[in-house]
Amino acid sequence: MSNIRGRFSKPADKLAGQYTTSLPVDQRLYKQDIAGSIAHARMLAKQRIITQTDARKIVDGLLAIQKEIELGKFQFKPEMEDIHMAVESRLIEKIGEVGRKLHTARSRNDQIALDIRLFTKEAIAETQKGIRALQKAMLEMAEKNRAVVIPGYTHVQAAQPVLLAHHLLAYFDMLQRDFERFNDSLKRVDVMPLGSGALAGVTYKIDREFVAKALGFSKVSKNSMDAVSDRDFIIEYEANAAITMMHLSRLAEELVLWLSVEFGYIEIDDAYATGSSIMPQKKNPDVAELARGKTGRVYGNLMALLTIMKGLPLAYNSDMQEDKPGYFDTVDTLQTTLTIFAGMIKSVKVNKANIQRALGRGYILATDVADYLVKKGAAFRTAHEIVGKLVNYAVSKGKTLAELDIKEYQQFSPLFKADVLKITIESALAARDITGGTAPNQVARALVAARKIVV
Amino acid sequence: MSNIRGRFSKPADKLAGQYTTSLPVDQRLYKQDIAGSIAHARMLAKQRIITQTDARKIVDGLLAIQKEIELGKFQFKPEMEDIHMAVESRLIEKIGEVGRKLHTARSRNDQIALDIRLFTKEAIAETQKGIRALQKAMLEMAEKNRAVVIPGYTHVQAAQPVLLAHHLLAYFDMLQRDFERFNDSLKRVDVMPLGSGALAGVTYKIDREFVAKALGFSKVSKNSMDAVSDRDFIIEYEANAAITMMHLSRLAEELVLWLSVEFGYIEIDDAYATGSSIMPQKKNPDVAELARGKTGRVYGNLMALLTIMKGLPLAYNSDMQEDKPGYFDTVDTLQTTLTIFAGMIKSVKVNKANIQRALGRGYILATDVADYLVKKGAAFRTAHEIVGKLVNYAVSKGKTLAELDIKEYQQFSPLFKADVLKITIESALAARDITGGTAPNQVARALVAARKIVV
Amino acid sequence: MSNIRGRFSKPADKLAGQYTTSLPVDQRLYKQDIAGSIAHARMLAKQRIITQTDARKIVDGLLAIQKEIELGKFQFKPEMEDIHMAVESRLIEKIGEVGRKLHTARSRNDQIALDIRLFTKEAIAETQKGIRALQKAMLEMAEKNRAVVIPGYTHVQAAQPVLLAHHLLAYFDMLQRDFERFNDSLKRVDVMPLGSGALAGVTYKIDREFVAKALGFSKVSKNSMDAVSDRDFIIEYEANAAITMMHLSRLAEELVLWLSVEFGYIEIDDAYATGSSIMPQKKNPDVAELARGKTGRVYGNLMALLTIMKGLPLAYNSDMQEDKPGYFDTVDTLQTTLTIFAGMIKSVKVNKANIQRALGRGYILATDVADYLVKKGAAFRTAHEIVGKLVNYAVSKGKTLAELDIKEYQQFSPLFKADVLKITIESALAARDITGGTAPNQVARALVAARKIVV
Amino acid sequence: MSNIRGRFSKPADKLAGQYTTSLPVDQRLYKQDIAGSIAHARMLAKQRIITQTDARKIVDGLLAIQKEIELGKFQFKPEMEDIHMAVESRLIEKIGEVGRKLHTARSRNDQIALDIRLFTKEAIAETQKGIRALQKAMLEMAEKNRAVVIPGYTHVQAAQPVLLAHHLLAYFDMLQRDFERFNDSLKRVDVMPLGSGALAGVTYKIDREFVAKALGFSKVSKNSMDAVSDRDFIIEYEANAAITMMHLSRLAEELVLWLSVEFGYIEIDDAYATGSSIMPQKKNPDVAELARGKTGRVYGNLMALLTIMKGLPLAYNSDMQEDKPGYFDTVDTLQTTLTIFAGMIKSVKVNKANIQRALGRGYILATDVADYLVKKGAAFRTAHEIVGKLVNYAVSKGKTLAELDIKEYQQFSPLFKADVLKITIESALAARDITGGTAPNQVARALVAARKIVV
Repeated sequence: MSNIRGRFSKPADKLAGQYTTSLPVDQRLYKQDIAGSIAHARMLAKQRIITQTDARKIVDGLLAIQKEIELGKFQFKPEMEDIHMAVESRLIEKIGEVGRKLHTARSRNDQIALDIRLFTKEAIAETQKGIRALQKAMLEMAEKNRAVVIPGYTHVQAAQPVLLAHHLLAYFDMLQRDFERFNDSLKRVDVMPLGSGALAGVTYKIDREFVAKALGFSKVSKNSMDAVSDRDFIIEYEANAAITMMHLSRLAEELVLWLSVEFGYIEIDDAYATGSSIMPQKKNPDVAELARGKTGRVYGNLMALLTIMKGLPLAYNSDMQEDKPGYFDTVDTLQTTLTIFAGMIKSVKVNKANIQRALGRGYILATDVADYLVKKGAAFRTAHEIVGKLVNYAVSKGKTLAELDIKEYQQFSPLFKADVLKITIESALAARDITGGTAPNQVARALVAARKIVV
Repeated sequence: MSNIRGRFSKPADKLAGQYTTSLPVDQRLYKQDIAGSIAHARMLAKQRIITQTDARKIVDGLLAIQKEIELGKFQFKPEMEDIHMAVESRLIEKIGEVGRKLHTARSRNDQIALDIRLFTKEAIAETQKGIRALQKAMLEMAEKNRAVVIPGYTHVQAAQPVLLAHHLLAYFDMLQRDFERFNDSLKRVDVMPLGSGALAGVTYKIDREFVAKALGFSKVSKNSMDAVSDRDFIIEYEANAAITMMHLSRLAEELVLWLSVEFGYIEIDDAYATGSSIMPQKKNPDVAELARGKTGRVYGNLMALLTIMKGLPLAYNSDMQEDKPGYFDTVDTLQTTLTIFAGMIKSVKVNKANIQRALGRGYILATDVADYLVKKGAAFRTAHEIVGKLVNYAVSKGKTLAELDIKEYQQFSPLFKADVLKITIESALAARDITGGTAPNQVARALVAARKIVV
Repeated sequence: MSNIRGRFSKPADKLAGQYTTSLPVDQRLYKQDIAGSIAHARMLAKQRIITQTDARKIVDGLLAIQKEIELGKFQFKPEMEDIHMAVESRLIEKIGEVGRKLHTARSRNDQIALDIRLFTKEAIAETQKGIRALQKAMLEMAEKNRAVVIPGYTHVQAAQPVLLAHHLLAYFDMLQRDFERFNDSLKRVDVMPLGSGALAGVTYKIDREFVAKALGFSKVSKNSMDAVSDRDFIIEYEANAAITMMHLSRLAEELVLWLSVEFGYIEIDDAYATGSSIMPQKKNPDVAELARGKTGRVYGNLMALLTIMKGLPLAYNSDMQEDKPGYFDTVDTLQTTLTIFAGMIKSVKVNKANIQRALGRGYILATDVADYLVKKGAAFRTAHEIVGKLVNYAVSKGKTLAELDIKEYQQFSPLFKADVLKITIESALAARDITGGTAPNQVARALVAARKIVV
Repeated sequence: MSNIRGRFSKPADKLAGQYTTSLPVDQRLYKQDIAGSIAHARMLAKQRIITQTDARKIVDGLLAIQKEIELGKFQFKPEMEDIHMAVESRLIEKIGEVGRKLHTARSRNDQIALDIRLFTKEAIAETQKGIRALQKAMLEMAEKNRAVVIPGYTHVQAAQPVLLAHHLLAYFDMLQRDFERFNDSLKRVDVMPLGSGALAGVTYKIDREFVAKALGFSKVSKNSMDAVSDRDFIIEYEANAAITMMHLSRLAEELVLWLSVEFGYIEIDDAYATGSSIMPQKKNPDVAELARGKTGRVYGNLMALLTIMKGLPLAYNSDMQEDKPGYFDTVDTLQTTLTIFAGMIKSVKVNKANIQRALGRGYILATDVADYLVKKGAAFRTAHEIVGKLVNYAVSKGKTLAELDIKEYQQFSPLFKADVLKITIESALAARDITGGTAPNQVARALVAARKIVV
């Protein structure tokens, strides 16, 4: 913008202008920018740095500009360097000389810090809403299917039976930590930076607490150089987002597996699948796959910002302008993924017949057989070895453990008695009756506790 | 280990054994592993799952093994898969059959989760100590140099004068947030996972609260599948470490610049520099540069673990074994860097003469001149333009602003009066008298507040 | 698109539609998509899979659509899944039933692989042009300043004198490797994938070589599953771009340092700088800083795609749709940065007075003094120690080496004779007369060689 | 090392010494370092910079040191900064004053550049051997199972039948590109940097070509500053390694899936699996999972080095010392993974019964049915819709397409004739008879071509 180039004899090179402008990206912050300017103008008047009349004109002008933007009537001119100059220059156009007073006791360095903090507070609130919605959907699916038993896996190998609800609540708990992580980060975001000026504070008798209160911040920043030069709160959001997306990518992977013909445990609504342009039979779990893919993008944005901030001397450097494209992309990606997953999970139908068939495969009661021997007096490590041999024997005979008779069992240990044949999926579940275990009563209790969290 | 391969007819391929063993990495967890096993054995006895006599033998055996390890007498055999099997197999060697009972009601999946959580609790405490030590060193340097004024920079261009103490306190505040971030994460680490078994809980009547208390945990995990399959708490440490290293890399960059002949603001002790094998005159800021470089390594470790965990289905998968090499490297790197920086900062000597010279260069009082015009009635944006032209004029004359006379000022605005010449570094500092500003009384207050934090 | 959802009873959920559509991103590939379809249609006719009349209608329709897009008259409907369906559906709208034949013997899986390969071939050519332009600018700056000597640095500590042209040619050589790296990658991009179908090849007697030739490819892909499921050629571009941006970030760092008052070695045109909204005196090296920041973004995009592709089973998975946003961003960022740097470098003015002053500081001839002793008979390591002490002595006296007299020299070694005082910046430069050294004649030769590369 | 600290009055702080030493990492380069020193010493003698006698003593001393190291008798003293000083200081110990001449006309900056380039040349050769071994194993598995048909997948949904050999050859082709990528990078590694000195070249009349020839390099570096300050050739190796590991992670994922009970397509030797400490029945695909996990580590190392190099001014900075830990880890990880995968693939047994069963599930001939309609005159898009409805009908009836009778077909289109029932897995395969397609004769040809590559 020409008035910022006052010292310069030449306009920016056209390509340089495109390269350096942040307007296409930061115009998204218009609401925060205008809200900040209004609070700033009111404070300037209260402190008699400008007159009440001037403040009123500025506030009215800013509100009118906000309306212009929201109605799509505002022209974002490419020669403006950023949202701040776009708004200020339009303000001067509209209300004249008075508009030139708005930037008193302020720098773009503390202004952008304010805008992005306002944005982040809202982003955290929205993200937390999204997490709650998905937790709720997971919980409802768990409640709806509370009697369903599935094979629990490790290494994509059937391991031990678990309640599907137990499996789903594992995600509920991950999401709960994600929620809390965002909560914790809020403390570090909820800090009002205006008044830090370019880097050293400003020379006017301003009232920072007034601005903080007007904008809903609970504290003001303590060091002006820190306030304009750090972006750790954005990195923290991006790191929290990366962890949340990591969790979602795991859920996505399971949905993809469970939707395969080979597993066939669930179906999802057509609304969350896509077809093939060539294979008429296909129903592809597009949403789940894309979420898994977008996780990479969210990781990349985190890595980008960490790299950008590395080794920058204090205070502001233009490298930091590159904080926003990746950040906005991460916020949007995470929020949309949470919302769409909530919808998709609600649409899941469980295919009990296929699951039942799967429970019969493999040797998922082997641990219970080993525990049986321990309870009959064997040392666990010994029991484990005995059952290892028993399983090998069964494999060689092409039988499941349930298909062996008691004599076959006893070939491997005299501790085996007829009651070993009473080990069933149900007894295995019921036996895991400790906090965090998959026993039906434990899971029932966990469902109640979860319900309290999401109301 | 052969007894874990019970079902298998063949030993692991030798290279495969080297590839899959985690022993060279996780042997570092021996203390945590043994502490966990002792608490587990005592609990098994208390719950009458094993006898008190057995428990005593096991505990004594484990303590003896710990001593062997600490005396360097323990043989970490390459054919052991991990620290758990190395210890258990030695236990069986030492105390016989009784040792085979230790693994009752436990899986390596919950055992490693326990070990790494114990490790992380200690790592956080150590890291926080390191942060405090560096904060203290920064504060002492600030206190010792409380009257020193330096040029404040943006874009590596002199911007406005600031107190060196103010600059240093910016890092104090960054480190304070880093400290709090680790504090927040502790809540999510301080969760006792034992009892989760392989993934579904265990079939014995164990007392998880007893184990938690014995090991100093404040809660037990709520979902067995979540407990054995997530590593978000490690990622959280790594993300917090990455942010802290980012801050340290910025400090490192400034030290490198300030140590250059061109800036010459400080000197550091020879102890933190290295020479050149060819250039006899060199004193290179090796420690600062390495810290900057190691920041990349800490970032890489974070990226590695995020990538490792992406898209893994529940519950445990061996990919997760790869969590540790990068994690240990990050913990060590961060802790060492913090400690060594504290020492290095204590050794810094400030070169006031060079700084004084630098303050005379540039036009770092230009903002104050613009603010002067505002106070005389100009709109800020107009004042900014006038001073822009004034600076250009001064540049063309090869003069500093202080070298212009009042008539030259008045060529640019009639608002300039003789008192404009009273704008000095000191008046500029004093004028920034708001919370977070660089005015001496504000910084004095901030020093007092900082001192309360580090005692 | 409805006709792709043929098997489905429900339209996509609206949010799901937005989530899964790639149209906003891949519409950029319209030219490649249409070119591919035209070649495909002509081949289908040549092979008598469709009639010549049908082919003509299809080709005319496609050309008309291309015109619509270029005139801004094409409506990219949000319900279209991607550019392929957007074009095909418009084609059917325009030419009716015949349009429904275009997708014969083709899948979107091989179609997108084709589009992105066509795009990448062009991207590489454009990038190489950009590299050449910057090499040329660097070379011109070197030629223009061929007599300028600057302090060469290691660790941001003055080390030994070098010709500025020698320093600039270091970047020329880095860029040359960047150029060659893109060249090498071209071989792996220049492979025509159409005919791979969804994953297994197609059931029609198509002529793949005909299509390859029509589109300028030198070979066809050898394995249909590989052809539709790999994106290594994009990762390769992104890795090459990351390395190139790494080089540019180093140049950017040097420009930032050299533009500081403390160094003051160069000036750049106002066109490549920005001012401050508050500090009227500022001229900030915005372009250089942004390039350094954007390097982080390019790194992030690489990390994103590597992560996306990790662990995907064959063949196509929707995660791969996420390849494009980061890729396009990288291509644009790299090409723009190269172009703008070429302009910026052309605008650089060298400030010889400041450089001259810098050459006098420090002890950059110390290595030459040590080499002097070696030539007089000392072992190098001994000479190095002697000169180390000599420098310490000079520092303690506040003198440069040139200000010491011969007696002072001789206190440290009797090997010093009067001719040691003849060591100068010029003699130091001239002495480095080996291939790759900074001696003026060597640099002159290097300039000639460089000139041959960029014509 | 004390003689490098000649200018300094104080030894390094102990922790600082540990922090800055690279010896624990770079001692691995002893062979390269000694080879380089030998060539350098011989050249110094040839150029009469040192005497032949001196050179002989030096060479003999160095060879003796190499033997000491190889016999484990060399003491790597922690106070040595790096491998260069460790060797040089031992040389001086052994042969006295003459040893102090070795570092004439050399700096550690060009010395480490030489060592790491020698290392990289070997690393590339080894890696390429590993790639060839795995290609061979893949090819053998393909040849052995050339008649086996499996369902081809997209989106983990059965798509169309393919030959297993075709599927395996997709990996062969990926590996072939990986091989070529390493080949291309070799050109940029095969450059001899010695003679670049610290940054500016050296002042002695050395013969760089002689050293290059002695060490097997085909060219010498062209610019001394570039030669000591760039690490792009390491990044290039790491990027190529990341791409290769990405390919291996995909193979690993498929092995994990195929080894699951749900797929059950293959078995691997016990040697490549591990058991469970608690579940006696488990056979976990540990090697495949670890390879997938280690991919994250290799990515992290790449990201680390890119970040380290970003924004470093010329020439050498100590940040660059951090290039090696991640690099060595990447080289080792990649080479071991390739070797172990070759062994694992050789051990794979294909379970034809399970595969046969899988081929019967799903609707993998639907594309062929659509193509049938096209050949009868339908437009493809229309045919696709018809078959979509047909599949839906079959799903609703719980039938496969093969189980429908001709009347049912004809309800969806009159174009269906009795010959539609002749579409089989075999006919579908045979129909894809184009270059790159899965038709048996095409695959046979591809097998022959592949065999030529691996001899």
